[in-house]
Amino acid sequence: MDQLQDLQAQLRQFVAERDWQQFHDPKNLAMLLASEAGELLAEYRWVPNDQADAASQEGERRARILSEVGDVGIALLLLCQRIDADPVAAMRAKLEINRTRYPADVVRGKSDRPPLK
Amino acid sequence: MDQLQDLQAQLRQFVAERDWQQFHDPKNLAMLLASEAGELLAEYRWVPNDQADAASQEGERRARILSEVGDVGIALLLLCQRIDADPVAAMRAKLEINRTRYPADVVRGKSDRPPLK
Amino acid sequence: MDQLQDLQAQLRQFVAERDWQQFHDPKNLAMLLASEAGELLAEYRWVPNDQADAASQEGERRARILSEVGDVGIALLLLCQRIDADPVAAMRAKLEINRTRYPADVVRGKSDRPPLK
Amino acid sequence: MDQLQDLQAQLRQFVAERDWQQFHDPKNLAMLLASEAGELLAEYRWVPNDQADAASQEGERRARILSEVGDVGIALLLLCQRIDADPVAAMRAKLEINRTRYPADVVRGKSDRPPLK
Repeated sequence: MDQLQDLQAQLRQFVAERDWQQFHDPKNLAMLLASEAGELLAEYRWVPNDQADAASQEGERRARILSEVGDVGIALLLLCQRIDADPVAAMRAKLEINRTRYPADVVRGKSDRPPLK
Repeated sequence: MDQLQDLQAQLRQFVAERDWQQFHDPKNLAMLLASEAGELLAEYRWVPNDQADAASQEGERRARILSEVGDVGIALLLLCQRIDADPVAAMRAKLEINRTRYPADVVRGKSDRPPLK
Repeated sequence: MDQLQDLQAQLRQFVAERDWQQFHDPKNLAMLLASEAGELLAEYRWVPNDQADAASQEGERRARILSEVGDVGIALLLLCQRIDADPVAAMRAKLEINRTRYPADVVRGKSDRPPLK
Repeated sequence: MDQLQDLQAQLRQFVAERDWQQFHDPKNLAMLLASEAGELLAEYRWVPNDQADAASQEGERRARILSEVGDVGIALLLLCQRIDADPVAAMRAKLEINRTRYPADVVRGKSDRPPLK
């Protein structure tokens, strides 16, 4: 069992012990995910692009960012469990599509065709 | 190397081949993550809570949901790579905090104290 | 001068007095808007669809919802000011498009073609 | 009747003619708002802060931005109608709070205490 599967087992137990399955339908979990992503976004709201790398390493801010990364990741895993989806398989499949959609020699160094849409 | 590490290596190569590191500062990646989470959210916008499980299994909708799950997951991994964070460690740490914050015998069956905030 | 124009004038003054124009480029304001929309979303995260109307009237929750409505509205107005856009004109134009895109006799009572996309 | 009230009356008619009130409970409208805010966010995803003003004026991009501004505004007004809230009153109330929370002489020129939270 790899580390992601182990975490998923722990999450399943965490939810079951609290009898929270009843609140965790996919619609509510998608809302959880989006609101947590909004909180992560808020950490970078006033940080200029060229200071965002450094800001991500500052003590207190880094702690908050890692906390939000944890929240977003947990929300994503909870949703995947609920809808019986394999997150890594979904990411692999999307990466494969993106390889075709954005050929390296066409999009190299360009952001005007938004990647990963 | 487990499956998540393998995927992260592939993502690193995907970005490098396209020379996209210049666009992928943490601020922009947090925006990518939030906008992809918004697209996932949109899939459940008009679905009532009690139909959300079934809707997540419907052919075309399921394909779109999995595609968005892939996008959100990729955005999260790209951000983690950029800020040198371990997503699984961040999730584990947050789960530990949530275990303390929401003791099973206190919150069981209750949603009024929002979980996983 | 109508009430919206009066409010916009007050907002302009509020920002100028704090010398915040430097942080309020359109990118940052779009992030502000999205993160505030995420906070509003969080208020409905665990509320079932059929209880959402009643929940919107409950004392403390209503106060939080109105506070987030205020935040979202302010963020939208700040963005409109910055990019020199008229929010009411933008809404009118979009409503006109939606009238054509979703003819009443075709979409009546149906949610499967997502409205207002 | 001012321009905002006129628009709200038109929106009410638009929804009624399509019999969409049944889908427009406050939870779903908060999701609509957040997903539209995510689409607006996407327009600025790869734009550096110092190019965001200019990018907001570029022909095609500006048209997309105005379209998303319209969507966000409409979603906010629909939510306000549904929960019987006055958006301008909510913004005014929040601005008053922000005036107290962020005294001009304390926060002038500083972004580190995130404004408008």
